[in-house]
Amino acid sequence: MVFVMDITMSKKFVQLLVFILTLTKIVLNGNVLIWPTDGSHWLNIELILEELIQRNHNVTVLASSATLFINSNPDSPVNFEVIPISYKSSNIDSLIEHMIMLWIDHRPTPLTLWTFYKELGKFLDAAFRMNIQICDGVLNNTKLLARLQEGGFDVLLADPVTVCGDLVALKLGIPFVYTLRFSPASTVERHCGKIPAPASYVPAALSELTDHMTFGERVKNTISYLLQDYIFESYWGEWNSYYSKVLGRPTTLCEVMGKAEIWLIRTYWDFEFPRPYLPNFEFVGGLHCKPAKPLPKVLWRYKGKKPATLGANTRLYDWIPQNDLLGHPKTKAFITHGGTNGIYEAIYHGVPMVGVPMFADQPDNIAHMKAKGAAVEVNINTMTSEDLLNALRTVINEPSYKENATRLSRIQHDQPVKPLDRAVFWIEFVMRHKGAKHLRPAAHDLTWFQYHSFDVIGFLLVCAATAIFLVTKCCLFSCQKLGKTGKKKKRE
Amino acid sequence: MVFVMDITMSKKFVQLLVFILTLTKIVLNGNVLIWPTDGSHWLNIELILEELIQRNHNVTVLASSATLFINSNPDSPVNFEVIPISYKSSNIDSLIEHMIMLWIDHRPTPLTLWTFYKELGKFLDAAFRMNIQICDGVLNNTKLLARLQEGGFDVLLADPVTVCGDLVALKLGIPFVYTLRFSPASTVERHCGKIPAPASYVPAALSELTDHMTFGERVKNTISYLLQDYIFESYWGEWNSYYSKVLGRPTTLCEVMGKAEIWLIRTYWDFEFPRPYLPNFEFVGGLHCKPAKPLPKVLWRYKGKKPATLGANTRLYDWIPQNDLLGHPKTKAFITHGGTNGIYEAIYHGVPMVGVPMFADQPDNIAHMKAKGAAVEVNINTMTSEDLLNALRTVINEPSYKENATRLSRIQHDQPVKPLDRAVFWIEFVMRHKGAKHLRPAAHDLTWFQYHSFDVIGFLLVCAATAIFLVTKCCLFSCQKLGKTGKKKKRE
Repeated sequence: MVFVMDITMSKKFVQLLVFILTLTKIVLNGNVLIWPTDGSHWLNIELILEELIQRNHNVTVLASSATLFINSNPDSPVNFEVIPISYKSSNIDSLIEHMIMLWIDHRPTPLTLWTFYKELGKFLDAAFRMNIQICDGVLNNTKLLARLQEGGFDVLLADPVTVCGDLVALKLGIPFVYTLRFSPASTVERHCGKIPAPASYVPAALSELTDHMTFGERVKNTISYLLQDYIFESYWGEWNSYYSKVLGRPTTLCEVMGKAEIWLIRTYWDFEFPRPYLPNFEFVGGLHCKPAKPLPKVLWRYKGKKPATLGANTRLYDWIPQNDLLGHPKTKAFITHGGTNGIYEAIYHGVPMVGVPMFADQPDNIAHMKAKGAAVEVNINTMTSEDLLNALRTVINEPSYKENATRLSRIQHDQPVKPLDRAVFWIEFVMRHKGAKHLRPAAHDLTWFQYHSFDVIGFLLVCAATAIFLVTKCCLFSCQKLGKTGKKKKRE
Repeated sequence: MVFVMDITMSKKFVQLLVFILTLTKIVLNGNVLIWPTDGSHWLNIELILEELIQRNHNVTVLASSATLFINSNPDSPVNFEVIPISYKSSNIDSLIEHMIMLWIDHRPTPLTLWTFYKELGKFLDAAFRMNIQICDGVLNNTKLLARLQEGGFDVLLADPVTVCGDLVALKLGIPFVYTLRFSPASTVERHCGKIPAPASYVPAALSELTDHMTFGERVKNTISYLLQDYIFESYWGEWNSYYSKVLGRPTTLCEVMGKAEIWLIRTYWDFEFPRPYLPNFEFVGGLHCKPAKPLPKVLWRYKGKKPATLGANTRLYDWIPQNDLLGHPKTKAFITHGGTNGIYEAIYHGVPMVGVPMFADQPDNIAHMKAKGAAVEVNINTMTSEDLLNALRTVINEPSYKENATRLSRIQHDQPVKPLDRAVFWIEFVMRHKGAKHLRPAAHDLTWFQYHSFDVIGFLLVCAATAIFLVTKCCLFSCQKLGKTGKKKKRE
């Protein structure tokens, strides 16, 4: 439970109250349930979770028994509820590896999207089956559900890339908040969240286009939206049936997703092209960034066998503190695969980038940084060591790259409220007010036909056509009448 | 000039620096030029101006020699640059009175908008001529312009209801920020600011509709948008010529207005229906609200002769501190003409309202409060004392009104940053970064035809039609060929 205190209460009285409540173990905090997604997604949600704990909230993570990054540190005050599933971490690993290789071999363009998604079909199927296991692991698990019911949660924070978090929230009767980087062609944000995306200047996800497009690019962008909408509409079909079955009434995945109180989007206007959005969308990109700690020497993370040709001035490490390295004053450039987390660390510290994107949003992310003048791209399939060297020389020696990276850094640092604080503020707001209904657009109550005013336009066109028809008829009738009278007069 | 300080500088060093700079009269502050609008609009901008002074900025107000509310207090640190004009305050007064009476007699509905604006034409003409005098008073005044050039301003803050502020900023080569409640049918926000407004759930200004509309209301709303667009497009014609003449190149009012770095909109989501907006729009409604100071007794502001029938428990005053009155714990309801400033004070203190709207945005404002369940409306043309009494009894005795007013109050108070601080933050941001170009949508670089993708849709339709045509032709040709071969075979 979250208590909203009367600010007129005297300080001493509040201190006494806190003391009593602490004694009776009823502390002034909220109860947050987390529905994460594994891999790099977890790194982002972990920061929010730590901040929630800092602010005295109880945090429980619902995680499957097979995870890559999500782990239950015994020293951490985070509670873990484990969802038993049949597959293993190695299955996820190989699935992701398969997807990365597929993506590198068939990097989609707006014109090859169709064949790309056909190739991706197998991966999507396997991911769907894994996801269904996680859903069933909670929703068909009466004991776990009962325990969660008793947990008295105030809010559920979900990464919607793993589907079903919203459904769990509905089952528990609590509001939910999303944290999300993107969905293909922003299909989910547009159709379920009702965010407008004019195809003329908002590039579709995975299109690698920018906000300034030629006519040809705008055609490609429109096709991107249409194709990805069509592909994901068919992908959603199975989820619609599952959601309807669980809720015991006909519904769709999108209808349930549309109930999210707040959408925390993991980008900001330093990275994003300015675009229309809605009051329940909050752009909190870079929430994981923090000042660098001092670093002893230059480093290189590398897990494989040490190459014989390695220079004496290059050191290999299994894992390095990337943020501290990027914040080091001697860091001149960042060679990155283009994940949003890494790009934001580079933006935060104002470091120009050489992007070698591989899959998912990475090619798009590098396209954004290129458009903002802070990065050069190297193609992973065709690159030679000379290409990489040239790219590095460009971003280091041409001052515009450093200038632009510094400009983006200034934008990231100069916000009224830091992204992590904004993210946590809105989660706490939802707890305090049991939702954020005042931010929910009425678009959710319209069909797509009504939303685009197609019925009104149709009606007005019919009215106009009728008016034109009637006026024409009247004119013709009058002309005929006049003609007849004329003839009659002539005859007379 | 605004200095961005290195935060690593030691505290003592900063203190020393400030001391030296203060001694040499070069203080760490910005130079802000204000382009206000008179009347209640001034009350709102005055608060921003006071906060800017608090934060050590120099503020200069450009005001015409005939004003109603804008006055140069000799004790105030605000500089006033007076624009000499030929008309007097009494002319403005009578013009506004004329407009109010016209509005009360011809309150526009979506279906009577046309005749209403025809009636309003005279007022618009007079207002246009007054406004042109203000513009000329600066732009043709070489001495004043030179003085402003020398002033070294960092930003201009303009209320665009008085046109030309943007033009002055352009002449001075400085960025500008708008503060605005609304324009009719949000014509300016949509066409010049590029904010999307789906007619299906975003009610047009002056329509008195809400975000939940029946089919008939959506038809009315669409007609409202179309009509007001058409009317204001013709009204803008004169301004387009004026702007082109001043800048010495063909331009439009809208193109210049579109250069605003930030649009500070004087509403928030407690008042506004959730709608799409853009990153350079900031909703700062209620920025003038503050906690109430204690009040001795119940009061009534009344300027005329004391009526003989007045009860002994009612006191008349020339002017009362409305905010303190609304914040008094014994205040049960607020009878208001529905101005945004007053409504926000009621929201801030959680007081339900009886609305008696007269003109401009007032009927709309009351429609918003009615839809949110915090107000009852009484028609000024038809009301009896009994109607007013019933309305008062309703909002006082039906608990839902107080509950809803309290809910809106909670939303107003529970923001990550207070509206006044947000407004000033973005003005300061524009000073620090010489603009806020990273928030400017690329929509500004598109024609309306491109913006709506009409060219792309046309192209795709032509492609589809051509494909269908070719396929049909091929089929027909094959059929004919087959038919001929068949006949030939038969004959053989």
